[in-house]
Amino acid sequence: MSGIWGNNLKISIFGESHGVGIGLTIDGIPSGFPIDLERINCEMERRAPGRNNLSTARKEGDKIEILSGLFEGKTTGTPLCGMIRNSDKRSKDYSKLKSLMRPGHADYTGNIRYDGFNDYRGGGHFSGRITAPLVFGGAICKQILESYGIKIVSHIKSIGSIEDESFNPVNVSDTLIEELPKMELPLINKALDNDIRNEILSAKSEGDSVGGIIECAIVNIDAGIGNPFFDSVESTLAHLLFSVPAVKGVEFGEGFNITKLRGSEANDEFYYDGDKVKTRSNNNGGILGGITSGMPVIFRVAIKPTASILKKQNTINIDEKRNEELNIEGRHDPCIVQRAVPVIESVAAIGILELLKGR
Amino acid sequence: MSGIWGNNLKISIFGESHGVGIGLTIDGIPSGFPIDLERINCEMERRAPGRNNLSTARKEGDKIEILSGLFEGKTTGTPLCGMIRNSDKRSKDYSKLKSLMRPGHADYTGNIRYDGFNDYRGGGHFSGRITAPLVFGGAICKQILESYGIKIVSHIKSIGSIEDESFNPVNVSDTLIEELPKMELPLINKALDNDIRNEILSAKSEGDSVGGIIECAIVNIDAGIGNPFFDSVESTLAHLLFSVPAVKGVEFGEGFNITKLRGSEANDEFYYDGDKVKTRSNNNGGILGGITSGMPVIFRVAIKPTASILKKQNTINIDEKRNEELNIEGRHDPCIVQRAVPVIESVAAIGILELLKGR
Amino acid sequence: MSGIWGNNLKISIFGESHGVGIGLTIDGIPSGFPIDLERINCEMERRAPGRNNLSTARKEGDKIEILSGLFEGKTTGTPLCGMIRNSDKRSKDYSKLKSLMRPGHADYTGNIRYDGFNDYRGGGHFSGRITAPLVFGGAICKQILESYGIKIVSHIKSIGSIEDESFNPVNVSDTLIEELPKMELPLINKALDNDIRNEILSAKSEGDSVGGIIECAIVNIDAGIGNPFFDSVESTLAHLLFSVPAVKGVEFGEGFNITKLRGSEANDEFYYDGDKVKTRSNNNGGILGGITSGMPVIFRVAIKPTASILKKQNTINIDEKRNEELNIEGRHDPCIVQRAVPVIESVAAIGILELLKGR
Amino acid sequence: MSGIWGNNLKISIFGESHGVGIGLTIDGIPSGFPIDLERINCEMERRAPGRNNLSTARKEGDKIEILSGLFEGKTTGTPLCGMIRNSDKRSKDYSKLKSLMRPGHADYTGNIRYDGFNDYRGGGHFSGRITAPLVFGGAICKQILESYGIKIVSHIKSIGSIEDESFNPVNVSDTLIEELPKMELPLINKALDNDIRNEILSAKSEGDSVGGIIECAIVNIDAGIGNPFFDSVESTLAHLLFSVPAVKGVEFGEGFNITKLRGSEANDEFYYDGDKVKTRSNNNGGILGGITSGMPVIFRVAIKPTASILKKQNTINIDEKRNEELNIEGRHDPCIVQRAVPVIESVAAIGILELLKGR
Repeated sequence: MSGIWGNNLKISIFGESHGVGIGLTIDGIPSGFPIDLERINCEMERRAPGRNNLSTARKEGDKIEILSGLFEGKTTGTPLCGMIRNSDKRSKDYSKLKSLMRPGHADYTGNIRYDGFNDYRGGGHFSGRITAPLVFGGAICKQILESYGIKIVSHIKSIGSIEDESFNPVNVSDTLIEELPKMELPLINKALDNDIRNEILSAKSEGDSVGGIIECAIVNIDAGIGNPFFDSVESTLAHLLFSVPAVKGVEFGEGFNITKLRGSEANDEFYYDGDKVKTRSNNNGGILGGITSGMPVIFRVAIKPTASILKKQNTINIDEKRNEELNIEGRHDPCIVQRAVPVIESVAAIGILELLKGR
Repeated sequence: MSGIWGNNLKISIFGESHGVGIGLTIDGIPSGFPIDLERINCEMERRAPGRNNLSTARKEGDKIEILSGLFEGKTTGTPLCGMIRNSDKRSKDYSKLKSLMRPGHADYTGNIRYDGFNDYRGGGHFSGRITAPLVFGGAICKQILESYGIKIVSHIKSIGSIEDESFNPVNVSDTLIEELPKMELPLINKALDNDIRNEILSAKSEGDSVGGIIECAIVNIDAGIGNPFFDSVESTLAHLLFSVPAVKGVEFGEGFNITKLRGSEANDEFYYDGDKVKTRSNNNGGILGGITSGMPVIFRVAIKPTASILKKQNTINIDEKRNEELNIEGRHDPCIVQRAVPVIESVAAIGILELLKGR
Repeated sequence: MSGIWGNNLKISIFGESHGVGIGLTIDGIPSGFPIDLERINCEMERRAPGRNNLSTARKEGDKIEILSGLFEGKTTGTPLCGMIRNSDKRSKDYSKLKSLMRPGHADYTGNIRYDGFNDYRGGGHFSGRITAPLVFGGAICKQILESYGIKIVSHIKSIGSIEDESFNPVNVSDTLIEELPKMELPLINKALDNDIRNEILSAKSEGDSVGGIIECAIVNIDAGIGNPFFDSVESTLAHLLFSVPAVKGVEFGEGFNITKLRGSEANDEFYYDGDKVKTRSNNNGGILGGITSGMPVIFRVAIKPTASILKKQNTINIDEKRNEELNIEGRHDPCIVQRAVPVIESVAAIGILELLKGR
Repeated sequence: MSGIWGNNLKISIFGESHGVGIGLTIDGIPSGFPIDLERINCEMERRAPGRNNLSTARKEGDKIEILSGLFEGKTTGTPLCGMIRNSDKRSKDYSKLKSLMRPGHADYTGNIRYDGFNDYRGGGHFSGRITAPLVFGGAICKQILESYGIKIVSHIKSIGSIEDESFNPVNVSDTLIEELPKMELPLINKALDNDIRNEILSAKSEGDSVGGIIECAIVNIDAGIGNPFFDSVESTLAHLLFSVPAVKGVEFGEGFNITKLRGSEANDEFYYDGDKVKTRSNNNGGILGGITSGMPVIFRVAIKPTASILKKQNTINIDEKRNEELNIEGRHDPCIVQRAVPVIESVAAIGILELLKGR
């Protein structure tokens, strides 16, 4: 199984990179909520390729078509399904890849898992293209969360060795919340924009790719969301985050670095700021015992370098059962981190709405 | 909700630190499987406190009592429930903590989540003690996995700033698989044993605590286990790992470090080793597209320093709505990393059996 | 929530009667299974309206379009989505019904449940039209079940007061298995065909409607499928059967009539027929303790008379909060029992495949 | 799988008739709810055997022990587990039944399902005794539902051929709500008490058994609870009702009888009774489109005659693979309908609370 998730809010995805269409059904959203289609398109556009020389030239101009669940501009409360027809697909680019297992991709594991019957063209159901429906679902959830005052915002924490600043974990500024979603390369330190472009283009010029880290903040979320153990905020978000292709690490608050601190440093001391309970530090990323503390929920996600590279690689020919050299041609992203930003925000939005509904 | 997890294999936990008892029901295990109770006790013992000066003096000598699901030494296939009665509980140690929210603990978030009705004694349902039933469930799953040849083994990758070596990601040695589970401080480089004890005891002497990183390997697992997207190996394991109190980060393979590599370095090249498909490196931690590749599944988990410390801390008194100083007395672990090792292995075993059953 | 179901096999439905489209995603089906599209169309056709004077004149000529999960004629193993665009919809027929709550329909309950934001046109998401995607999903599951030898077959047990014979519960003949699916009015006693047509047309001529009972048999199913308690065969099937609009009763084996028997009559005695274990009677409908016995699984489903009638009715105007007379015009089915037959078989197929996969 | 159910409210059961203990964990109940333990005991007592000559002489005097989830008399909001130790078990009574498959029981299907490893003593996990934990869970849910004003009440609609009156479907009287739960044989027409005792004792005297029908009403439930399709009120309740051993039929409102009505008779006309929307009839059992209408939810459940009878029966010896005669001795219920009443109410309470929480 693979494509259905959730308890209080359920999502169901479908599609292959070069099949007829891709899409998502979301069930459990409240009725009567007005959906801003323009904002959905903006989110889709943030993820879309072909916008500049940092990503693949493949155009996915097609917009989402909402098939159900929306009536007179508002949610009906019944399942909402959005679909995108695949258009600019060049299946012949991939035909020779049927037997050659691309390193870093799911070609081999998918072949074993599905006994060779998976659609191999362009990665099929494993394609990053299937994250487009997730952005659609996330765009809806974000709008609903905003009606609770909750905002989800991210920046590129690093690309390769270039590191951006971190969010102030106890106070994510309104300026960042407003500006980051509009930036092609969302960075706190805008001066790094050029360095990062160069890092990506340098990899591209070598037929190679780079990865990076995305830092995400969920702000203005009430204390008391989430649960101990299996439905903890961390479990719920990490489950969804690791569903996104290329994610290899997730950490909350100080994350791995918290292991270098003493307890007296790591513990976030509580205090009353007027009536409101706050913590002076936020090493726990706004979550204690799996439940939000009211401080910003902060997490970071490691995105591996794009597996598709033009450089020659060694691999296996699974049909002829022998080792072989692989030269991939076609259009690829030298870096998908910037395109993954709205995907990460989207699954976070889906996860938080699930938890909110479960309260 | 909080205490029930799974799809093909389901677990249900219950209990509070100072309540009547704690336990776990596991449903979906195969019938006719002989359970080695001695090995269950060994696993329970690995997690148990009070074994040496590195952990809390609280004794939890009580063994698990199996209430159902076992008949004539073998699983019946129907729900198997194990329970532990709480014995050495000193509730009066905690009574003054009813209103004082311990930093780093779930006292405050639990209070908000449950409107003040949660059992606050010793952390109640948020207590690390609730991981004992998880070890019980994991010990059963481990035995079943071993009938498939699958072994789960871990070591302490670091405590504070002291770093152990890493597993060889393409070949975890049989010696390690055999020895690590028997070690009080499971380390690849045994020479570090003393340094780590000193690191822990140094924190203890200051009334402070330390955290660390656990590295875990799942070896001899077939290729083709897991799924794309929501039921990926990473999603399933991370969900469970982040359910374990004190876990703040999870990464697979090279994890966060993979973001520093170029694609040509990060991609694990496939080759035929005789009939068997292997990869020369294992930066993806044995998982591609959410599915096992047949290489060892390798992940690391960040465990924060024990939140309970003796040092004075600032916090809030939630009943009197004012800031206050907190001095905790009682028995505490200066480090829980070594006790968390069997817990991490246990939830990994539960997760892998879930995925195996879903194949 | 409403539109997602399943554990080992998951289905997700979407759509409204007069929206853009309706459809179903099915996840968890095996890979490499060849799908006979012609047979899917046959099943869709069995449910389709407008075939004769017994059902509504509304044409739903549109065929299902498969968007994903099928590659080179075989299942990929990843989510399979099928969609139907709504075409012959006459929304103006329904506009005046926005405030008038049709008795027997979900207009009022849907209005309350969704705070008036549900799509009211033609029943919206509550429309029987949404069962078309279920037939699509069922048609796929039936084909997979047939590869195990399992056949699902039904007949009209009664329409109004006209009663057909019952299946021989210990031996459903191959002739019936072959013939019933091809009959416009599937009856064991074909001689009743005319009486039943008259019963339906008599109701139609009065602007009224009739209901009936469908009896369904699942034959050649192995013993040992299903589970005690919550995932029993009865629970799983009944859950799905009661999801079908207009179903008000479900019984297995002798069902309600078994309460009139003594235990010595009701108990089905086992015997060896060669190597095979059989029962001499089948009052338990092939299920004991929630698990199949290897005898035919037999159940009956009560379908209420079509709620849409032309006769004048009293009801409420929910916007004006007063009682009012209601005269419905438009095209309606005087009886939906014959069209419900493939729907009932479909959800049974989905349920049985779920249970088979969970074994 | 078998023992875990639910979405917004989850229950997990465990235990075998002659094992160490049986119990239930319930997760998702609100925190701070005061639990009346005396009322739980009353409900347990209603189901308990050995109270009179109408049921088995087996005593299950043991009371439920609450292990977790209750603190200072109130729910904590975390998993609540209750356990009963098995005491008066006479395993030797059953030893000879290991190979002889009792007709009407799950001996054979359980043996196949679990490859012969199920605990066969007294039916093991298939025993009706496992419904005791369901009554415990139901007793908690009932108390919570009553805080919303919702009452669940049942009577014996029939035993064998003796038929009680039916509930007035549009108005279940307060007198019945108060009196029925206190009656040994809950009947609307109390004059039938003697006839029913005679019917049961007559079967008993012949070493035989009788079944019956239970009618249940859920009153004072708001309109708007439940969902279209898979999480309909009927689906949710039927799923749980068919989990109860011996249930072979479930119908809502007029149920199977509604198929004999014309649409104009079956449709329940709405009207305003002051501000409140009501229906003049309630043939749909208070549910339209899977959602409550605000009228009483009425359903009936068919309970088959107790499978355990003293009369000689033919069956198979599964170890020796031959036909054989079976003579069961020991203590049995000539009728379990009266003991099933609180079980039916309990699962109904669990189902309704699940749906209420999912609103």
